[in-house]
Amino acid sequence: MSKALSAFSPKGARVAIVGASGAVGREMLRTLHRRCFPVQSLLLLASERSAGSTLATPWGPLPVHNLASTRFDDLDIALFSAGGSVSLEHAPRAVEAGAVVIDNTSAFRMRDEVPLVVPEINAALIPDSPAIIANPNCSTIQLVLTLLPLHREGELLDVSVATYQSVSGAGQKGIDELLDCTRAALDGAPAPTAKVHARNIAFNVVPRIGPFADFGYSQEELKMVHETRKILDLPQLRVMATCVRVPVIRAHSEVVHVHTRRPIDVPQARALFAEMPGLILLDDPEHDAFPTPFDATDRFESYVGRVRSEIDNPHGLAYWIVSDNLLKGAALNAVQIAEAYWQKRTKHA
Amino acid sequence: MSKALSAFSPKGARVAIVGASGAVGREMLRTLHRRCFPVQSLLLLASERSAGSTLATPWGPLPVHNLASTRFDDLDIALFSAGGSVSLEHAPRAVEAGAVVIDNTSAFRMRDEVPLVVPEINAALIPDSPAIIANPNCSTIQLVLTLLPLHREGELLDVSVATYQSVSGAGQKGIDELLDCTRAALDGAPAPTAKVHARNIAFNVVPRIGPFADFGYSQEELKMVHETRKILDLPQLRVMATCVRVPVIRAHSEVVHVHTRRPIDVPQARALFAEMPGLILLDDPEHDAFPTPFDATDRFESYVGRVRSEIDNPHGLAYWIVSDNLLKGAALNAVQIAEAYWQKRTKHA
Repeated sequence: MSKALSAFSPKGARVAIVGASGAVGREMLRTLHRRCFPVQSLLLLASERSAGSTLATPWGPLPVHNLASTRFDDLDIALFSAGGSVSLEHAPRAVEAGAVVIDNTSAFRMRDEVPLVVPEINAALIPDSPAIIANPNCSTIQLVLTLLPLHREGELLDVSVATYQSVSGAGQKGIDELLDCTRAALDGAPAPTAKVHARNIAFNVVPRIGPFADFGYSQEELKMVHETRKILDLPQLRVMATCVRVPVIRAHSEVVHVHTRRPIDVPQARALFAEMPGLILLDDPEHDAFPTPFDATDRFESYVGRVRSEIDNPHGLAYWIVSDNLLKGAALNAVQIAEAYWQKRTKHA
Repeated sequence: MSKALSAFSPKGARVAIVGASGAVGREMLRTLHRRCFPVQSLLLLASERSAGSTLATPWGPLPVHNLASTRFDDLDIALFSAGGSVSLEHAPRAVEAGAVVIDNTSAFRMRDEVPLVVPEINAALIPDSPAIIANPNCSTIQLVLTLLPLHREGELLDVSVATYQSVSGAGQKGIDELLDCTRAALDGAPAPTAKVHARNIAFNVVPRIGPFADFGYSQEELKMVHETRKILDLPQLRVMATCVRVPVIRAHSEVVHVHTRRPIDVPQARALFAEMPGLILLDDPEHDAFPTPFDATDRFESYVGRVRSEIDNPHGLAYWIVSDNLLKGAALNAVQIAEAYWQKRTKHA
């Protein structure tokens, strides 16, 4: 990436970023820049607590304004990533004022009237006028990218997914807690109290992400079940999900085991993954090739490997996905939605 | 544990430990002591390279002898944990000389004539005269402990397991590599070359344990499929396994998703797990109770939590198991086999 500053495009979109200084907000800024999104103006917004500061952006240093006292009148696109309650309060007024809202929180995802979009799958749902568009949960996005081609080819019967989710899913404070706890462990010092993660995450794995909700499921697990069904438009799809935080800084990994009505063999599955936009197949056991979080960090694509057939059952497939949770799992997917919206909007105009 | 030295029991068993100085060998010594196994004499054996040293044991310091030049004539029980090739070469002659061999390697596990034993499940297969008895793979033992009660109650249709395996599964050198790589990462230094694990394991997860074998499976994954079928005596059981190394020092975790012919609801499943010998149920979402590797480290029991029904399908169950891979996954299970053998043997005599 160039370190040179970008210039604003007179014919570009007027963009607001709500939660610009957070881990995802910063990636939104970088991603708009890396993808040469045409930005006419950039408005950085945050809660009163963070407002007043200045943030370095690819378009130069910009002030962070107070969200509560800002009107959205002169905006085309508002990217929200400042928590569900912020979105619930401010997204509707942004839409009323004429901006499309691309919301990275879970606030609106399961509402019938709100499209839940992964552009490679259901870009057709992106409207061409102001509305709320929901960005799915990070761990769901990488999963559905792999499920869609399998379903088209063989019809999914059931999906089992176990996640290995990095601490950046809990923001910069999630990263800091891992590093602090790890240093303490190596020094033989008492572990700092876990505040962000459910337990001490240094040299440990923690099978709870988000609070517990109905049926003993964590919120993260319920999101994976319900959002997968909604995005794939398969409301009956059988999905078992268990979500686990692991001491990894960035990129989420997932073990996926599926059954399909029509058998899909390994060469077929590999070809389906390789052809799917947004996926890169990295799968060659003979040459010890498979993806890990290090490989996917800071990449736009999601990586698939370890593709295998179930032993003695041609209807079963196993594989492994790794994707940058801050990019395809959040900022990149949001920017892709913005790109598609802006294309429709400008074509329409 | 007491630091006092144990005394040898004149009527106890004459025990040899092959690979006594390794991570599992040391746990075998500790476990014999912790469980008050009656030891009449203790012979520590190792390859020529390690022979000649002295090892601290709960029975005082003992010399390590050269395995190749040792006869097994005056021994009752030989615990092998020095690699498959060592077992292949020396276990048969130990049996010929009159010792039972409890082999922690994979050398003999899948041979029809060799019992593969988890005492809570199939102690009846333990012979009462010298033979080779195979100790299963660490990640398999904790899995089958949970599958047996579910199968008895509801008949298993399929099993999906994703592992989160600690670096001590690769011995002390596996632990050292994690710590060295983690220190380097925190210091911003270049990562030491990964020699034990397939990739740099610090702040990363690595979906390959052991070399790749047939069908793109890792050896660890094939072990889980085939050993699970053999131990449960269900040669057709459908098992999908993906094995992943995580930056955890000790204790293996597993996400397990199963389907059963007859529905088992969550209270039933919890009761089945709680009643199963060797398992402890730690599952109370309302009070944020679930096990992590820290909870299971240095414990004899395996921990089960996060028990849930599949959404919209009463035939599906999801749960999470954590077990100390060096204890129930290796040394403890071997010592339990030794205890059962010695009981049969002395009753028989």
